[in-house]
Amino acid sequence: MKKNMKHLLLASLMLAGTAQGMAGVATWIWYPGDYEIWMSNEMQNRRTERGAFFPPFWRMDSHYVLVEFSTKLSLAAAEEVEIAAEGRYNVKLDGKLQPGEPSKLAIPAGQHALNIKVYNQQKPPAIFVKGATVASDTSWVATFEDKEWIDASGKASDQSGTVYAKVGAWNFNDPTAIPSQFKLATTPKAAVKTDRSAQSVLVDFGQETFGFVKLHGLKGKGNLTVYYGESKEEALDKEHCETFDRLSSLNHPQPKDFTMESSRALRYANVVWDGTLAFDNVSMLYEHMPEVNRGAFRCSDEEVNRIWDVAAHTLQLSTRELFVDGIKRDRWVWSGDAYQSFLMSNYLFFDSPAVERTLFALRGKDPVTSHINTIMDYTFYWFMGAYDHYLYTGRKPFIQQLYPRMVSMMDYVLSRRNDFGMLEGRSGDWVFVDWAEFPMSKKGELSFEQLLFCQSLKAMSKCAEVVGDTAGATRYAELAQELRGKFLIAFWSKGANAFVHNREEGRRSTQVTPYTNIFAVLQNFFDENPAFAAAQRKSIRDNVLLNPKALKITTPYMRFYELDALCTLGEHEHVMREMKSYWGGMLGLGATSFWEKYDPKESGAQHLAMYGRPYGRSLCHAWGASPIYLLGKHYLGVQPTAPGYSEFVITPALGGLKWMKGKVPTPHGDIAVYVSTDTIKVTAPAGKGYLYFKSLRTPKSNIGSVEKVIDGYRLQLAERGKEYVLSYKSEQP
Amino acid sequence: MKKNMKHLLLASLMLAGTAQGMAGVATWIWYPGDYEIWMSNEMQNRRTERGAFFPPFWRMDSHYVLVEFSTKLSLAAAEEVEIAAEGRYNVKLDGKLQPGEPSKLAIPAGQHALNIKVYNQQKPPAIFVKGATVASDTSWVATFEDKEWIDASGKASDQSGTVYAKVGAWNFNDPTAIPSQFKLATTPKAAVKTDRSAQSVLVDFGQETFGFVKLHGLKGKGNLTVYYGESKEEALDKEHCETFDRLSSLNHPQPKDFTMESSRALRYANVVWDGTLAFDNVSMLYEHMPEVNRGAFRCSDEEVNRIWDVAAHTLQLSTRELFVDGIKRDRWVWSGDAYQSFLMSNYLFFDSPAVERTLFALRGKDPVTSHINTIMDYTFYWFMGAYDHYLYTGRKPFIQQLYPRMVSMMDYVLSRRNDFGMLEGRSGDWVFVDWAEFPMSKKGELSFEQLLFCQSLKAMSKCAEVVGDTAGATRYAELAQELRGKFLIAFWSKGANAFVHNREEGRRSTQVTPYTNIFAVLQNFFDENPAFAAAQRKSIRDNVLLNPKALKITTPYMRFYELDALCTLGEHEHVMREMKSYWGGMLGLGATSFWEKYDPKESGAQHLAMYGRPYGRSLCHAWGASPIYLLGKHYLGVQPTAPGYSEFVITPALGGLKWMKGKVPTPHGDIAVYVSTDTIKVTAPAGKGYLYFKSLRTPKSNIGSVEKVIDGYRLQLAERGKEYVLSYKSEQP
Repeated sequence: MKKNMKHLLLASLMLAGTAQGMAGVATWIWYPGDYEIWMSNEMQNRRTERGAFFPPFWRMDSHYVLVEFSTKLSLAAAEEVEIAAEGRYNVKLDGKLQPGEPSKLAIPAGQHALNIKVYNQQKPPAIFVKGATVASDTSWVATFEDKEWIDASGKASDQSGTVYAKVGAWNFNDPTAIPSQFKLATTPKAAVKTDRSAQSVLVDFGQETFGFVKLHGLKGKGNLTVYYGESKEEALDKEHCETFDRLSSLNHPQPKDFTMESSRALRYANVVWDGTLAFDNVSMLYEHMPEVNRGAFRCSDEEVNRIWDVAAHTLQLSTRELFVDGIKRDRWVWSGDAYQSFLMSNYLFFDSPAVERTLFALRGKDPVTSHINTIMDYTFYWFMGAYDHYLYTGRKPFIQQLYPRMVSMMDYVLSRRNDFGMLEGRSGDWVFVDWAEFPMSKKGELSFEQLLFCQSLKAMSKCAEVVGDTAGATRYAELAQELRGKFLIAFWSKGANAFVHNREEGRRSTQVTPYTNIFAVLQNFFDENPAFAAAQRKSIRDNVLLNPKALKITTPYMRFYELDALCTLGEHEHVMREMKSYWGGMLGLGATSFWEKYDPKESGAQHLAMYGRPYGRSLCHAWGASPIYLLGKHYLGVQPTAPGYSEFVITPALGGLKWMKGKVPTPHGDIAVYVSTDTIKVTAPAGKGYLYFKSLRTPKSNIGSVEKVIDGYRLQLAERGKEYVLSYKSEQP
Repeated sequence: MKKNMKHLLLASLMLAGTAQGMAGVATWIWYPGDYEIWMSNEMQNRRTERGAFFPPFWRMDSHYVLVEFSTKLSLAAAEEVEIAAEGRYNVKLDGKLQPGEPSKLAIPAGQHALNIKVYNQQKPPAIFVKGATVASDTSWVATFEDKEWIDASGKASDQSGTVYAKVGAWNFNDPTAIPSQFKLATTPKAAVKTDRSAQSVLVDFGQETFGFVKLHGLKGKGNLTVYYGESKEEALDKEHCETFDRLSSLNHPQPKDFTMESSRALRYANVVWDGTLAFDNVSMLYEHMPEVNRGAFRCSDEEVNRIWDVAAHTLQLSTRELFVDGIKRDRWVWSGDAYQSFLMSNYLFFDSPAVERTLFALRGKDPVTSHINTIMDYTFYWFMGAYDHYLYTGRKPFIQQLYPRMVSMMDYVLSRRNDFGMLEGRSGDWVFVDWAEFPMSKKGELSFEQLLFCQSLKAMSKCAEVVGDTAGATRYAELAQELRGKFLIAFWSKGANAFVHNREEGRRSTQVTPYTNIFAVLQNFFDENPAFAAAQRKSIRDNVLLNPKALKITTPYMRFYELDALCTLGEHEHVMREMKSYWGGMLGLGATSFWEKYDPKESGAQHLAMYGRPYGRSLCHAWGASPIYLLGKHYLGVQPTAPGYSEFVITPALGGLKWMKGKVPTPHGDIAVYVSTDTIKVTAPAGKGYLYFKSLRTPKSNIGSVEKVIDGYRLQLAERGKEYVLSYKSEQP
């Protein structure tokens, strides 16, 4: 119970702060990325498969074990500061080593240099410093090699060339809120249904959940196993369920409540025992990152509302210390999955601390010895994700911290180009793209990979601008431009009127897969001639995206982009039907969270199987939650057009709904949108925003004046925090 | 006491094995370099300065936290193997994950693949596997990214491109000999003299030593401080002694023996207390790496024998888990110091496990962000040390493990060349050379650095050959040749008839410092024309090395090379006088170990001061132990001429002694040498060896036939293990 109190304390501290520390507020600080990498090691190594430890197959990095933190001080009056550290440490004031490991330090008035050096092999070195004005905040810098040598006379080196980085932080704003002791929050949760048998009990928690199963009043002697199931079938299949926990030789003369050591994904728990064991009932502690749903959506269609709710639940469950792919399996951090979580999170939590942590964790440390997660496409999503995070949040300090690792990652990619300047899978590269039902070549130059590569170069160019690397910005932009030109020539098939899948040994394939065509629409990746570009867009829509005979996607992962692209093409009504059919299809099968894979053609136990295992499929997979993103971005229609929502647009589309309302979070507060067929209401907290819409009659606004623009109307949202109410007439009846 | 029993157990296990594990013998294995880096972190962070933690100022790396170990098995019969691991682990047999964390595994007869994957954030992942025939030995391989992904159907990847390395090991040949629990051996040691005062006692252990001070029968209440001194002055100077340990608020109602937590360098301990504290007496636990002195030297001059003994004691004290510079300060691993320890160790311990550990620890992991220890010259000693270790021991597996890190280190060096292909100190580079009493420029291109750079390229070329990288071998040899040509033109001054110190902004300085000239002799770094080369050698000898007006060396560090060079020039009698004067000088001042710095011109407390601190000087510094090397290599005259003493020469030189005898260790056993003015006796265990000597009359050998060669005689030592006895007549009267 005490333990849980601490969890709650930490959770509330977390909510009290911002995601990344505030200037002037004392907080625990560390070398940027170190806590994130360490935490991801802790988290990703929690995966088990039928009782066996199942860690990732890529390299896990570690924190720097010896870190020096430093700051310059200018004190009007003398003050005493308190110092706490995770690790063994020393303190230098103005270059003079202080005795012992001082937990308090008197600093006279005036200018000073304060340095604290911490060693910790097991956990990331971190410090907390607080005085009347002195505070360990995000203005401090850190280095892993201070190079402060002295000569034989005792003179310190004067050309150390030390590289410092701005420190990392979260919201551990109290000396007792030790970063390495962070735990997710837990909340007691009762079973919805309990089926008892002689030596077993099957418990149903009513929906997909995650946490620690708890046995109340456990007593007696014997062995006990909890078999977990995302489905009832899985929990009851002792031989094949993916996870279980065994407790051997229990001996409890007195009844006591017993909580399992590990948290697991489950809806069902099948508790099986022998001997004289007995217990009163089974409950659980729901373990979760206390993220607040800032985004909201409600509409006239209850099925869509239910889809949004289950998608939000899915994303909530898979947003742990970092964004994981699925909560049963793998509990790992995958870049392709995470990229979608970032995008969804922008319309639900906004600027979740999990975003930057996940980006740091995925990247790890130099040297780069592999693609991210070993997957070529996942490397590219990582670049795109970093820039998108900046676009949505405006978090420039994060890009500054990450940029050196972006450069070395891109150096790795560039070093692996073939003679045509393109990338093909080399030994050690996993070319993933998607889990597909049709044969798909992973050989040669995949058009999909080149497109993502090009987008990554563009993201690099923009991030280079953010950090002031103008030479880099130019170089990456030029590389992107060059690759784009080659791409259009290499992969556009005039015969198929679409982008083809790949080129092997110089020969263009004839296969048209959806992937490249989807991303071409999303990234506006067409010919420079606008007329030809428009024709390309149209032919992709007709020949690929809306063509019933084209190759079909069966993962929510790629459906994300497919529907994103169709909305980009204005096909909101079609997408609404698809959402209701696909996600509604899962709901119809009893889903309480969205799945890793869903194929309406499958039936029964087929829906549970994957990877050659009867319950291999994850029934709570982050990439299943895309309706949150689609409804926020394309129906409520809110998206930033300049970093951190300093500029944004609202382009609502009912897509067949009678009405809808919702909120989209921004760094400055939430943008509220209500749309019916005759009324639009919007409130925006800050930023330069425009509302775009169509109307069959001349619209009227309570504030400002509506402009006529090509293809509709525009209203500048100049009055911050005020509700704009427009009367109009939707094209939708 | 139990603790010490364990130390002894581990120490004896250590002595029982070889330095690096034996094929077929089950031993704890780890990723190569990981244990070494981890151990060096543990060790180097033990430094304190007046109670404050004082870690290094360079980057400390860490082990890989997730490592997969694997082997292929071919079993004639089924067997059960035992598995132990440091860390959380899983086991795969033929790709199939075994349940739980099995400590036993039944393996059927036949061909199998066995994989064990271990996660450990705090300590290096390591395993121990033992069955009837299966054993975790140095034939296993390890990787930090196995890249074993599976597709949606469950099929494992077939192009993983995983890079494996042969595992690292030492001699932990028992499952209970856990690598991370290794401790150095301890031996009780009594005080030689004890001076008691009212609230203090000064204890003298009679000679420089290292370990844990122990208070016998400590009781009462109060505070107690132990002030350590390498000199009596230091121990008595509470305000300025370099190290102390404070125990606050002790409260021992009953007398008990109390051992200090940290081991320290000391000869004297000044124990000071207050309150009612009392104790019977003070002793210590001498802490040491149980290295055996395989090398030996005795001669007709007792002062030289004493020098050899004190040098051996100095090297023994500074050979800890790794080779440290000094035992009081810094207790760090410095490449320049370690290089000399390696060379000395070849004539005392031979193939100490500390050599390879130190080379791994100095190098750390990629990426390279700095010179080794931040010092340019120290980078070069590291390359040279790696090759020399191979030359003396023939340890090819070590070079294979280290070579990838040699390549990336050299890439770093090559990337920092200036327009002339030479190196000058850039921001962040410490150009050290030596602690000198005269002004010495560290700017521009130092001839000394270019010479070492060239030698490093040669070492790289040879190591490239060892691992079969023929392209690398050629490239490094060409780079060395090119640099050598530039060097000779740039730095040979016809005016000074010597190599000058440096070139700044294209202008050659006129200063002649000893360093480059010494190394030119040692490495035979002269003109290609033999006649001119001989003239250069002679003029360096006369104008620099034997010129009383030339700039003088005051560190034993550079005296090492200076005397090495003079012996190379045949100046054995001169060097013998210098040894007696310089090292004998320290003995005359009461030294019981050799110092970091000794200047005969100084007096009294000056001998103790350095770095602006009254006791800053280390009185037990490894680089002070060079007589071991000089006497073994140049007087007994034994050195390998092909890797691992497969070929060697013995070129004895009495240098003024009446007689001498000694042993020089090799991988095959010890070479024994006795030399007087009329008799030479040698015994060699293996290898193709030649004895070279001069004689005023025709020599006679009991075995084999003596050949006449230019400038003396030669005898091939074809009979292994037999004592060759020669009668001859020395040129020395």
